[in-house]
Amino acid sequence: MRPADIKAAVGVEVRSLREKKGWSQEQLGFQAGLHRNYIGGIERGKRNAGILNLAKLAEALGVRPRSLLP
Amino acid sequence: MRPADIKAAVGVEVRSLREKKGWSQEQLGFQAGLHRNYIGGIERGKRNAGILNLAKLAEALGVRPRSLLP
Repeated sequence: MRPADIKAAVGVEVRSLREKKGWSQEQLGFQAGLHRNYIGGIERGKRNAGILNLAKLAEALGVRPRSLLP
Repeated sequence: MRPADIKAAVGVEVRSLREKKGWSQEQLGFQAGLHRNYIGGIERGKRNAGILNLAKLAEALGVRPRSLLP
């Protein structure tokens, strides 16, 4: 998997889980303690999120951190 | 799980997989295209690795990126 595809896969998963909760990017950002613009960048596959931010997103979304990665 | 524990969990997994291959940190660094000091920092739970470096480590170790996270 190419690097861009790996980041894109994370973004697709985050968006899917967020939408299942019926949350806006701003709501997920609030729950995870991250800025809504950062959430948008993750979902578009533009951000190379670190372990700690992946863990914040996973906790907010109610999943294990590993489930956000391909 | 506390942030330090999440990074530590990644480090334990990377070390375990590396040792199963019988590789030194330097050998894993070579295979993954990362510096041996960075590998050491990951294994000690000191580095907040991003998606792309997790993917490089996973590819070198022959596992899916998600298997490196808790």
